[in-house]
Amino acid sequence: MWLRENIPSDKRSPLGLRDDAACLDFAGDGQLVVTTDLLSDGVDFRLAEIDPQRAGRKALAVNLSDLAAMAAKPIAAFVSIALPRHPPGDRTPLDLAIALYRGLIPLAKEFDITLAGGDTNSHDGPLVISVTAIGQSTARRPLTRSGGLPGDWLLVTGHLGGSLASHHLDFIPRVREALLLHDRYDLHAGMDISDGLALDASRLAAESGCGAIIRTDRLPVSSAAVHSNDSPEAAIRAALRDGEDFELLIAASPEVARAMIADRPLDCGLTHIGELASARGLWCRQGDEAPKPLEPEGWLH
Amino acid sequence: MWLRENIPSDKRSPLGLRDDAACLDFAGDGQLVVTTDLLSDGVDFRLAEIDPQRAGRKALAVNLSDLAAMAAKPIAAFVSIALPRHPPGDRTPLDLAIALYRGLIPLAKEFDITLAGGDTNSHDGPLVISVTAIGQSTARRPLTRSGGLPGDWLLVTGHLGGSLASHHLDFIPRVREALLLHDRYDLHAGMDISDGLALDASRLAAESGCGAIIRTDRLPVSSAAVHSNDSPEAAIRAALRDGEDFELLIAASPEVARAMIADRPLDCGLTHIGELASARGLWCRQGDEAPKPLEPEGWLH
Repeated sequence: MWLRENIPSDKRSPLGLRDDAACLDFAGDGQLVVTTDLLSDGVDFRLAEIDPQRAGRKALAVNLSDLAAMAAKPIAAFVSIALPRHPPGDRTPLDLAIALYRGLIPLAKEFDITLAGGDTNSHDGPLVISVTAIGQSTARRPLTRSGGLPGDWLLVTGHLGGSLASHHLDFIPRVREALLLHDRYDLHAGMDISDGLALDASRLAAESGCGAIIRTDRLPVSSAAVHSNDSPEAAIRAALRDGEDFELLIAASPEVARAMIADRPLDCGLTHIGELASARGLWCRQGDEAPKPLEPEGWLH
Repeated sequence: MWLRENIPSDKRSPLGLRDDAACLDFAGDGQLVVTTDLLSDGVDFRLAEIDPQRAGRKALAVNLSDLAAMAAKPIAAFVSIALPRHPPGDRTPLDLAIALYRGLIPLAKEFDITLAGGDTNSHDGPLVISVTAIGQSTARRPLTRSGGLPGDWLLVTGHLGGSLASHHLDFIPRVREALLLHDRYDLHAGMDISDGLALDASRLAAESGCGAIIRTDRLPVSSAAVHSNDSPEAAIRAALRDGEDFELLIAASPEVARAMIADRPLDCGLTHIGELASARGLWCRQGDEAPKPLEPEGWLH
């Protein structure tokens, strides 16, 4: 009942909360892009230690980040929740559900998507929240991991590392940045960095049939990673491996990449951090040194 | 890895398991119809007592039943799973995941939908499986709960009651039946019966701005309900309230309803079980007796 009264109604999904399923209008051009992520208390956040609004927000934000990774415009999200019968603290299950939605709803508004349906149950276990987000590709088609070419520059948005100590619950999914870049520039490949740059760059390279070289002296290391590590080397390792950055990793030709950097189209910044190579594998290099093999290790959820 | 090798690849979703999101082709006519259901061990099934294949199958089947309720053609499903770190019995979490998919995959094939993506994690809790299914409405538009008119006949497919003792894990979602009826006949309203006929008929009536009268002497009581109850009266109560029937409840004009019954278009049967009325509320009647109020009670998940 709280949900019916508090989730903004939306002409795009007139039936979601009152019928057996939600109906979405979908303009025929473009592909449907769909992603789903499941978060659990104790794995993706600790409900005893945080405001549950932030857990609700994160459950939607990680899905929006996946749509950003494909350069798709978000349309709708569906939220399924398994509520613990005895949530941490003094909350009732209903209090917890409302708090989760108080985190979800503002983010949905910010990105103009409709919370079109869901399923909320109680069970004898920790909170589980599963969100499925639906987007639509633009006229440029979805941005995938597989279009990179040897010689492409690798670029990242924002800063890397230290997310678990800082913004993994509050990051802004790079939806607007992905749509802007994909619209203005000829991007070859892209993804979001969720498991650390090293692991995710190796994935993008492998899907593109290439290797990747990361220039470790160029990484935009986050201030959180600098402050929470004892040495510059440790901070760089954090930027390579911490995960949960939710920044974009982009591959584009050197010409296009140079233009993107010169144009400064993004407030969050865009940094050249390496290249795709024809030799398979993952490598790092510092300055003019020869590339050295780098383990594709990261944060496995 | 098992998933990549065992989930049938499908040209409709070329990227689902290898990129950040799945891309689905969607023909521009018709609306997108989306539903999501979350099932937990201990609530919707007892993993210690059943083959987990049946839990996987049920997680998809309940979503297909929701698409049937809207007379939408299923296209794709997305499966998120929180695996217990220590499943019941001797299974590892991976064994359990594979068993769930061994139940999901044949049903997906049977209804020609692609398992286009998902998210599988482990956590310190019972199994939670959340499925989001995407369908497309036909040229007739989605079938909703709100189009019923006073005087409409209420029809149900199949038989009611006793589901928990028999087929709640193995029911066949009435997708084909819903598409066939919606294509051939002018249906006013419809839904699937998941929480018991009494409660669900009261919902359809309320959304249509009507009341509903159920003819208790006409109910197609399942043999499971007959055998698991001591008296005919108890079996009828089971048919009214047991829930998890996953049959269709349809409202149509008396003329159309008569034609549907005479034509016998469905192997599972179609039974006239009451009418919509202009007076709000839920009523039952037997033969020519005056209608008596009926509590809209059912199986609340």
